[in-house]
Amino acid sequence: MSGGPLGQSELERRAGVLIEALPYIRSFAGKSFVIKYGGSAMSDPALQQAVITDLVLLKYVGLHPVVVHGGGGRLSQWMRRLGMEPRFVEGLRVTDAETMQLAQMVLVGSVNQEIVALINRMGGRAVGLSGTDGNLIVARKRQTPGKEAVDLGFVGEVEKVNAGLIHLLERDGYIPVISSIGVGLSGEPYNINADTVAGEVAAALKADKLILLTDVRGVMEDPADPGTLISTLDVEQARHLVTGHAVKEGMIPKLEACVKALEAGVPRAHIIDGRREHALLLELFTDRGIGTMVVG
Amino acid sequence: MSGGPLGQSELERRAGVLIEALPYIRSFAGKSFVIKYGGSAMSDPALQQAVITDLVLLKYVGLHPVVVHGGGGRLSQWMRRLGMEPRFVEGLRVTDAETMQLAQMVLVGSVNQEIVALINRMGGRAVGLSGTDGNLIVARKRQTPGKEAVDLGFVGEVEKVNAGLIHLLERDGYIPVISSIGVGLSGEPYNINADTVAGEVAAALKADKLILLTDVRGVMEDPADPGTLISTLDVEQARHLVTGHAVKEGMIPKLEACVKALEAGVPRAHIIDGRREHALLLELFTDRGIGTMVVG
Amino acid sequence: MSGGPLGQSELERRAGVLIEALPYIRSFAGKSFVIKYGGSAMSDPALQQAVITDLVLLKYVGLHPVVVHGGGGRLSQWMRRLGMEPRFVEGLRVTDAETMQLAQMVLVGSVNQEIVALINRMGGRAVGLSGTDGNLIVARKRQTPGKEAVDLGFVGEVEKVNAGLIHLLERDGYIPVISSIGVGLSGEPYNINADTVAGEVAAALKADKLILLTDVRGVMEDPADPGTLISTLDVEQARHLVTGHAVKEGMIPKLEACVKALEAGVPRAHIIDGRREHALLLELFTDRGIGTMVVG
Amino acid sequence: MSGGPLGQSELERRAGVLIEALPYIRSFAGKSFVIKYGGSAMSDPALQQAVITDLVLLKYVGLHPVVVHGGGGRLSQWMRRLGMEPRFVEGLRVTDAETMQLAQMVLVGSVNQEIVALINRMGGRAVGLSGTDGNLIVARKRQTPGKEAVDLGFVGEVEKVNAGLIHLLERDGYIPVISSIGVGLSGEPYNINADTVAGEVAAALKADKLILLTDVRGVMEDPADPGTLISTLDVEQARHLVTGHAVKEGMIPKLEACVKALEAGVPRAHIIDGRREHALLLELFTDRGIGTMVVG
Amino acid sequence: MSGGPLGQSELERRAGVLIEALPYIRSFAGKSFVIKYGGSAMSDPALQQAVITDLVLLKYVGLHPVVVHGGGGRLSQWMRRLGMEPRFVEGLRVTDAETMQLAQMVLVGSVNQEIVALINRMGGRAVGLSGTDGNLIVARKRQTPGKEAVDLGFVGEVEKVNAGLIHLLERDGYIPVISSIGVGLSGEPYNINADTVAGEVAAALKADKLILLTDVRGVMEDPADPGTLISTLDVEQARHLVTGHAVKEGMIPKLEACVKALEAGVPRAHIIDGRREHALLLELFTDRGIGTMVVG
Amino acid sequence: MSGGPLGQSELERRAGVLIEALPYIRSFAGKSFVIKYGGSAMSDPALQQAVITDLVLLKYVGLHPVVVHGGGGRLSQWMRRLGMEPRFVEGLRVTDAETMQLAQMVLVGSVNQEIVALINRMGGRAVGLSGTDGNLIVARKRQTPGKEAVDLGFVGEVEKVNAGLIHLLERDGYIPVISSIGVGLSGEPYNINADTVAGEVAAALKADKLILLTDVRGVMEDPADPGTLISTLDVEQARHLVTGHAVKEGMIPKLEACVKALEAGVPRAHIIDGRREHALLLELFTDRGIGTMVVG
Repeated sequence: MSGGPLGQSELERRAGVLIEALPYIRSFAGKSFVIKYGGSAMSDPALQQAVITDLVLLKYVGLHPVVVHGGGGRLSQWMRRLGMEPRFVEGLRVTDAETMQLAQMVLVGSVNQEIVALINRMGGRAVGLSGTDGNLIVARKRQTPGKEAVDLGFVGEVEKVNAGLIHLLERDGYIPVISSIGVGLSGEPYNINADTVAGEVAAALKADKLILLTDVRGVMEDPADPGTLISTLDVEQARHLVTGHAVKEGMIPKLEACVKALEAGVPRAHIIDGRREHALLLELFTDRGIGTMVVG
Repeated sequence: MSGGPLGQSELERRAGVLIEALPYIRSFAGKSFVIKYGGSAMSDPALQQAVITDLVLLKYVGLHPVVVHGGGGRLSQWMRRLGMEPRFVEGLRVTDAETMQLAQMVLVGSVNQEIVALINRMGGRAVGLSGTDGNLIVARKRQTPGKEAVDLGFVGEVEKVNAGLIHLLERDGYIPVISSIGVGLSGEPYNINADTVAGEVAAALKADKLILLTDVRGVMEDPADPGTLISTLDVEQARHLVTGHAVKEGMIPKLEACVKALEAGVPRAHIIDGRREHALLLELFTDRGIGTMVVG
Repeated sequence: MSGGPLGQSELERRAGVLIEALPYIRSFAGKSFVIKYGGSAMSDPALQQAVITDLVLLKYVGLHPVVVHGGGGRLSQWMRRLGMEPRFVEGLRVTDAETMQLAQMVLVGSVNQEIVALINRMGGRAVGLSGTDGNLIVARKRQTPGKEAVDLGFVGEVEKVNAGLIHLLERDGYIPVISSIGVGLSGEPYNINADTVAGEVAAALKADKLILLTDVRGVMEDPADPGTLISTLDVEQARHLVTGHAVKEGMIPKLEACVKALEAGVPRAHIIDGRREHALLLELFTDRGIGTMVVG
Repeated sequence: MSGGPLGQSELERRAGVLIEALPYIRSFAGKSFVIKYGGSAMSDPALQQAVITDLVLLKYVGLHPVVVHGGGGRLSQWMRRLGMEPRFVEGLRVTDAETMQLAQMVLVGSVNQEIVALINRMGGRAVGLSGTDGNLIVARKRQTPGKEAVDLGFVGEVEKVNAGLIHLLERDGYIPVISSIGVGLSGEPYNINADTVAGEVAAALKADKLILLTDVRGVMEDPADPGTLISTLDVEQARHLVTGHAVKEGMIPKLEACVKALEAGVPRAHIIDGRREHALLLELFTDRGIGTMVVG
Repeated sequence: MSGGPLGQSELERRAGVLIEALPYIRSFAGKSFVIKYGGSAMSDPALQQAVITDLVLLKYVGLHPVVVHGGGGRLSQWMRRLGMEPRFVEGLRVTDAETMQLAQMVLVGSVNQEIVALINRMGGRAVGLSGTDGNLIVARKRQTPGKEAVDLGFVGEVEKVNAGLIHLLERDGYIPVISSIGVGLSGEPYNINADTVAGEVAAALKADKLILLTDVRGVMEDPADPGTLISTLDVEQARHLVTGHAVKEGMIPKLEACVKALEAGVPRAHIIDGRREHALLLELFTDRGIGTMVVG
Repeated sequence: MSGGPLGQSELERRAGVLIEALPYIRSFAGKSFVIKYGGSAMSDPALQQAVITDLVLLKYVGLHPVVVHGGGGRLSQWMRRLGMEPRFVEGLRVTDAETMQLAQMVLVGSVNQEIVALINRMGGRAVGLSGTDGNLIVARKRQTPGKEAVDLGFVGEVEKVNAGLIHLLERDGYIPVISSIGVGLSGEPYNINADTVAGEVAAALKADKLILLTDVRGVMEDPADPGTLISTLDVEQARHLVTGHAVKEGMIPKLEACVKALEAGVPRAHIIDGRREHALLLELFTDRGIGTMVVG
């Protein structure tokens, strides 16, 4: 307890925020929330600090956040440093064996361990996982119909998520932090889109929410005009946006992840602006939503 | 989700309130908080509504509020209606058998049931108890040294609190609401000061806090001057205030209750202003304390 | 061990009583028995003592007695003392708001607390409850077809019994003692016939027996002639007695309560003579039944 | 329910028996009672029927009877049939290897199985055990100071009782029936006095009572005069009776067994007349004791 | 650790045995294995020692062996010693009341207790049972169609196995050892073929295997020629061997027991050569089977 | 079941191996075994296959293997590929920030994930961990007395092992695989000797054994002469070998790890030859030890 007396209106405002938040805390307690972490929220130190704070506080009050991350930008940096040229075909990274090995090193050994260390320093208890650990994310080579001419190499798609390990860790107070690496039947690794992994993990966990942190305000009718933000989509509308090519390339796997999660029974998925500090707390614990919500 | 967009500073303010509150919610989860309910917070409908809301929300997020109440004012009204004249000796109500029967009817059958019904209508699950139920509050005739000339009748003091019933109910999601009636070894009822009962219940539960709602701002050096509020007292100072007659009559049982609770291991006791809306939420979940805190 | 040697035949008789009783004790262990307590068994001190002894002993050997009581007689006394005139329409008390408040005070604050104190003094552990506690008995205004002209006020009928609280208490060794007060959706109290409440509670608990203590020997073909006692009725016969107006007014809610309980799966209901000392023990633990038994 | 109406005094008498018995049932529930079964109660069919009924009823209402038996009489019959001459030295049977083998066959294969079958036919669930089963009764060759000249062969004394198996069976609803055979460290069997085994089993179980069924009324000052029955002995008096040779030979191991059990914390031991029908029920569930009680 | 260095090939051989055995240990852990014990494995001391060692080791590593035994040979010896002449009709012993009593004495009191003592001396914890204990094996008089002229007396067939007692004992670390005696509805004993009992017990336990130890190599096309051993039979073939009289008399109840067990869901039954030391270990923990396996 | 008949002596030999092994399996069940994995057993594919097989089989039969690994060789390769020159001071790698980042990538992202994938492909369920995960290995900068002139950078020593995460995973059937990376109080990573980490993990787990796989036969008096292998050392002798510089540099951290584990209550530590196939199985499940055993 510190500081001078607060005015009556400030006290009322504070009580109002709490009265709004507490019922959410109650209804979310004991449930899983899969958070795709990336973009500015991962690269900007101040935003990173705010996101990590939010994750630790969510765990404090009984929610079970599960973090999924990629790391394509840092992988490209390391490739260039080693004289390898990143190459993409329709948004997918061509991933030969050497690139795959480097991807594991960068995602599992570098990006993941940084996030884990940050959470733990802030008072949480995070454990880093890849899809290989406990056969968490079983994958197969991604089928790319109509593109048989190009071999994308170790680009994978999810076959099955074995969620037992996540449940075990979250029940015991840990925050799982998952690299978007899958494992094939012969133990070979696969590089998978992190939004896709987040959607599949949310589906397997029957999470209460899937939350994708992005660097835009949400799904917009005109991506150039923030005023055209779409607040709510139902799953049917989300499917049409994808098949109708009405959204930009990066938004497609995000919307597909939302659809996947909703089809598996996740009640709501959110695409929100990770550039806003404490976007997670505000999204979860206040009445006003942020970004785009997709509902079943 | 509703309403228009909120400004950046309002969002920051909201996030700030939550960041402050969540660690308290975590550290208080699963602990008991004994709240002496009375004064304006019980008689003013708006304040009553706010207190009940707070109680229900506290239970929502995992705290265990336990309510203790008296009802002297309403008892006096009923006495007059029946042609009986309330009589007090040094602040203690002279309680003959008929008065005692009426006290049970008013406290257990009327005041208690009103509080219980209000909590339940707001979404909580309250159960009313008196000291007779499960021999919750074992009492004996109050000894009043130096006043042997006056027989106060069924005025009691607490001999033992059997807290098992409270633990049973709070673990199962109920909010116990306790009338300040005790029971003697032969089953006879006793009228006991509600502040005293609250202190004894907090002691028996080894509660995390004892909170006494009053109609003043707290303990003041000059009761007439709110600017002389004492923010913090240690248990030794609290004892001196009582024995040195430095506080007014009504404050004496409150300070004694605080001392009793602290001696039994309750870490903190609070005498706070029940006229402030949501005083409980603000006291528990924000850094700035309200009223007077007594510490061990 | 005390007293002189007993004769052989007395020993044989004692062994016989035990050999008869022990299998009942075994088969009743862990089951709930709802007992409507009222009439002479409540007003005559010696009978009261015997009933309370029986309740405590039943609990001792593993049965779960649940007591339901009314208190109309005492309510009328208090009304008169306050200058209010009790008024009845076809057996139902006209209950305005003031009468209702007084009913709560008398039943919950006075009658209930007396029974609780008696049980506890005899070595049991009773807890008093009303329908308001934990929303135990949800009620609505009683519909009285054909009598729309008369507003009976707060006379209620049972909508739902939330038996969780009773189970919680009985498993933990307590004897629940329930006032026949219900609570409406807005938290308003209702006055309900105690036989009716007992039947509904037995139904909700899926009790092993419903036992109604009365001041007659049971259901009789000719109420004036004890020799016409009907030992056994099936549920169909019980319904006919009610619809055929073959029984006196006070017996109607009792038979309806039996029917209600049997329809919900309670195997047997008993209307027995509460003027016989230890009627409960004799009914439960000896082969000869007392009064009228209604079976499914 | 059957039979005609009972008179008021008969009902009172029945209620009285129950009121006396129920508190015993409660206080004995879940506790072990070791019963040495032998004498007329085992050989007279009517008495046998009554004892078995008692055992089954005790188990019904939550007590844990444990039966210990010998079988010397039947062993002697079989020996004679096989042309072997039973020989005793100061009350102990000279037991060579062949006699020992026959003792196992008679006690374990014949007497024990008969008792087990009887209990099960009456609705109980008995399991026969010998000291060999689960190393229940570890024994060694009995030392007979001053009689080195005579080799008694396989006469044993108890070294240790492994009570785990008994606890396992009694918790699961079984009545253990134990032959007085012990097992040595090399797996060899020993013949042990059944009273001694009962005392040791009661001691190891920390039973609530040890009850020895005999063919006399109890310990008597003058064995020839039933009027000299000693109702109560303390452990010191019991020791003196043994060392002072004040009792007949057969009573010595009985009193020693009582002393052994009491020293291990068994509160009471009883030597009672097994010729009285339902002696067990009457001893356990009525205020008047039967026979001689030895207390700590 | 002891002895000189081992050569490389010996080490490889040992590792090979372990690599073969460990997956069996895992897959058998916690499952029941019913072993019919008899023949040379019971009469030859060295073989007996090896079988008992195997049983104890199986229990050590988490399997639940259950032993079933007969004892006809020893019974005939005792009969002759008592001047009774054993008589058989089509392989079934004519069993009058006296013979039955002796059978119980020999099987339950002698053979069973010897096996129990041996297992316990080797470090196991065995408990001897007969079908009478806990009504384990409920039996009825064996119907022998076409032989009504001959009364076989107390020769029984199994009506029901109450496996609860076996489960209780095996979960608590005991090895049940069961005599092939059944009990009728009036408590009378029955003499039953031990192979038959083993099959019924395996069926009731839904054991993982039924293993019958014999004095031949298995089922042979030509019993005189070991080279004609049949390694595997399906249940249909086993039935045909019985009905087609293609096997010798002693093999019939064995094959019938296998069929019974398989029909109840036991996956595999084995008839193996008990004259081979450690036949149980080798059968269970190596890839090469021994004797004849019957599969569903 | 497959293959032709085995000779009698081969069967005896097999039975002998099993009889030797089964008691070890029993006594090791449920206990933790920390295995430092490295050298040829990690780099030679055939040996790797054998080690992984052993780990999976150990888990199968109820032991809890915990794997600790380093990866210095592969780190040096990657450093050279990136144009960095590995530099050592008295056996310790000079580790600047860039080297440290690469060490994490190589150990956590590459070596660890390879081991995990191999175990999982063989039927086990491994989870990769670093000291950062769940603050498993809390470290601080290594103090190198007398070498203040050289800054070794991020070379760490263990301050505390938080074994809760390992217990959680092993109880749930997982095999933890731990990279020898520690984490400082500010979340910074440290490079730690893998033998040291294995010793500390064994100490924290109170493992049943610490087993260090090496490329020599064990501790030798003359490292050049395998005939001078020391079979057993006590902890005092082990300490003297280290302080007396009687062993080569690489053996020092191994002996120190053994001493550390023994001091914490681990009963035995083993330095064994990882070049021998199935060294783990043979060490654990046969009477003959391999390599050097250090005992308390």
